[in-house]
Amino acid sequence: MTTANSSAVDQAQIVKLIDHWVDAIRNRDAEASLSNYAKNVTLFDVVNPLQYFGLDAVRRRLSEWLSTFQGSIGYEMHDLRIAADGDVAFSHSLNHVNGTKTDGTKLDMWWRATTCYRKMNEQWMVTHAHNSVPFDVKSGKASLDLQPQIVQQ
Amino acid sequence: MTTANSSAVDQAQIVKLIDHWVDAIRNRDAEASLSNYAKNVTLFDVVNPLQYFGLDAVRRRLSEWLSTFQGSIGYEMHDLRIAADGDVAFSHSLNHVNGTKTDGTKLDMWWRATTCYRKMNEQWMVTHAHNSVPFDVKSGKASLDLQPQIVQQ
Repeated sequence: MTTANSSAVDQAQIVKLIDHWVDAIRNRDAEASLSNYAKNVTLFDVVNPLQYFGLDAVRRRLSEWLSTFQGSIGYEMHDLRIAADGDVAFSHSLNHVNGTKTDGTKLDMWWRATTCYRKMNEQWMVTHAHNSVPFDVKSGKASLDLQPQIVQQ
Repeated sequence: MTTANSSAVDQAQIVKLIDHWVDAIRNRDAEASLSNYAKNVTLFDVVNPLQYFGLDAVRRRLSEWLSTFQGSIGYEMHDLRIAADGDVAFSHSLNHVNGTKTDGTKLDMWWRATTCYRKMNEQWMVTHAHNSVPFDVKSGKASLDLQPQIVQQ
């Protein structure tokens, strides 16, 4: 049922999910950070390949990434926007991670995240996630050291 | 009003928009390819910076890119998925472009596209677009020569 307040309720549900994922990433808990990911999710990730298909592939990729850190991870989302109506929703944000890798090097980087949701059995589930960094045209290198700045209109 | 068929009608409207954009890109028509982009759109693009904010910035970026080609551009979308309900929708696809740059070199590459829509005044408008390629961890280079393949689950 669609009511005047459903959008606000849905947005609040999605905020709660996102808060849960952020805590899970900070604690390097892959399973918790994939709660509410659909079994048939497609992931366009920061690194190769072009796409990961299915929850098992996404879980392997995330576990692998989390295992490259030692201790807890600093993780924040900025410029978060959420839209939801009926059984369709999306969110996007600039995500900031910093932490210490197992080899002692520090990681401090931003990436762009867009997440797409469907409501299934009264529960919002991620069916698609797109995480990336842009690249520098001249060097061909992925830009791992960018910080947010707004391009003038 | 939400009806049983509204989702199908909305999806058909979005397919029509996408077809229009594909034709516009093939013809290197920036203005037509930005029809139905909202004035406050945010773009996470394939190349730097992290984000473009607002239609004017997006138009400049797209015009610049289209001007690097000579003749028409080969442009196709694969694995297109669309979800729409009420006034919220998203789509995602793997996009394939090939063409000849003004310096005579050939470009033939795939990228990932996720597009988010809001319905405004009975018209679907893009409020967010995320286009990217992943990068290769070892070289740090953006992967411009990948082709779709499904990762085994």
